[in-house]
Amino acid sequence: MKKIHIVGLGLLGGSFGLGALSKFPELQVTGTDISEQNLKDALTLGIITEAKEKPDSDTDLVILATPADTLGALLKETLDQIGENTLVIDLGSTKAKLCREIADHPKRKQYLAGHPIAGTEYSGPKAAFADLLDRKVMIICDLEKTDLTLKEKAYELFDALNLKLRFMDPEEHDRHLAFVSHLSHITSFMLGKTVLQKMEDEKNIFDMAGSGFASTVRLAKSSPAMWAPILTENKENILASLDGYISNLTAMREKIANSDSEGIYQEFAEINKIRDILDLGK
Amino acid sequence: MKKIHIVGLGLLGGSFGLGALSKFPELQVTGTDISEQNLKDALTLGIITEAKEKPDSDTDLVILATPADTLGALLKETLDQIGENTLVIDLGSTKAKLCREIADHPKRKQYLAGHPIAGTEYSGPKAAFADLLDRKVMIICDLEKTDLTLKEKAYELFDALNLKLRFMDPEEHDRHLAFVSHLSHITSFMLGKTVLQKMEDEKNIFDMAGSGFASTVRLAKSSPAMWAPILTENKENILASLDGYISNLTAMREKIANSDSEGIYQEFAEINKIRDILDLGK
Repeated sequence: MKKIHIVGLGLLGGSFGLGALSKFPELQVTGTDISEQNLKDALTLGIITEAKEKPDSDTDLVILATPADTLGALLKETLDQIGENTLVIDLGSTKAKLCREIADHPKRKQYLAGHPIAGTEYSGPKAAFADLLDRKVMIICDLEKTDLTLKEKAYELFDALNLKLRFMDPEEHDRHLAFVSHLSHITSFMLGKTVLQKMEDEKNIFDMAGSGFASTVRLAKSSPAMWAPILTENKENILASLDGYISNLTAMREKIANSDSEGIYQEFAEINKIRDILDLGK
Repeated sequence: MKKIHIVGLGLLGGSFGLGALSKFPELQVTGTDISEQNLKDALTLGIITEAKEKPDSDTDLVILATPADTLGALLKETLDQIGENTLVIDLGSTKAKLCREIADHPKRKQYLAGHPIAGTEYSGPKAAFADLLDRKVMIICDLEKTDLTLKEKAYELFDALNLKLRFMDPEEHDRHLAFVSHLSHITSFMLGKTVLQKMEDEKNIFDMAGSGFASTVRLAKSSPAMWAPILTENKENILASLDGYISNLTAMREKIANSDSEGIYQEFAEINKIRDILDLGK
């Protein structure tokens, strides 16, 4: 592998650049970003070796790391630009609509649908770091639709970055992520909003370290430019997860209103088994 | 200070014991727990120096660290047992009802209402550690109702443990905590429940490190024995916070259903200012 091109030099695209360069010091990493400032920062930070609007025709890999709602048009445009030995990978958080839209594209086999389960609540090239992907899960969708030889280029990079590969179909991916990632971001944002509203009335803010609030609200620091599109792109699954959540909250509200301490205890004890699931990843 | 007595040797009571002994190695720490196993563990772990059902009459401080709904009866019983140079402190997460119940007690001035904003998602004496309280906030309620000389004993311990003292009236405390702590625990438990329900259908669990889920659901590992009573003790304030939260979620649901990407973006961008509030504690 000699040359990769990254479109979108934020947290994720930037970390791919830094990670790839740390493993392959001879690599040429070209890239571009819609923001002039991001592009400048990416050069300064060593995320890319050269700013370039489009990939060279001998580029091995093109990585698309822009917001979810921009990927459809960008992917088609990119496939039209590339030579026959180039593989395009996207890193979007939603996969079903994108894979549907691209299904009949004449260069479909030059595309690999990916989603690394990695991120922080920060965004932009300055938030990127070489180890972000280390030992994280990379979900690949519709694997069989990608050319065998081109896939080897992706594996070479993923293995070097220590990504753990998992394979799912795109619909399954979106259903699953709605529950384990998208819903968490919505609940965190809405928790932040509820507390901000209360504080407007109260003007009484004190050090909340240790209150549990900081951990549940952390994701409310996330980038709106990344998250607003995810919610509309994965609308049906997110509405299903949200409806289940609101219904659980409403039932708990009734238990509290009825001072049903025993019922709350039983329910919380049941939910405690989430420990086992969280420990699965350890 | 020569002698303290702790009732309830779990995470919080246990950490007070370990912390106090680390600062005052000559201290005698007696204590008791409703669980025989906890009492045994507390002795083994060096949380107390001696198991004792009731405080000696020359005990300087009695610390009550049992679930919120047990504190009313326990506090009255303890005040009836102690000598005139003993101060009783409770560490309960709800303060208004307790302070009301004890308002006219003949030994009211020998009681100090406290709430350390410190904890983890684990419980029991084995979860306790000497530094849990270090640089955490300790909220004191109705400070003026406690005897001046006896208060000095509490300050001596609190200062040694590096607790940062804050003063609030009990109603204000409960209103505030409903939003910054109790609500977070409910949202976390209900998020855990929603994902567990989904997983019963799907049987597809994968490593979720990095998905955001782990951080928002962490509090769902918390002790039901501690949390069920808090929810019913602080019912009115918690219902108010929960209603605000459900109403925010429902409005966001509508934005998603309408594919209102711009509206979601604007709202998330507004909520991003939670960063400033979280950084206040730094």
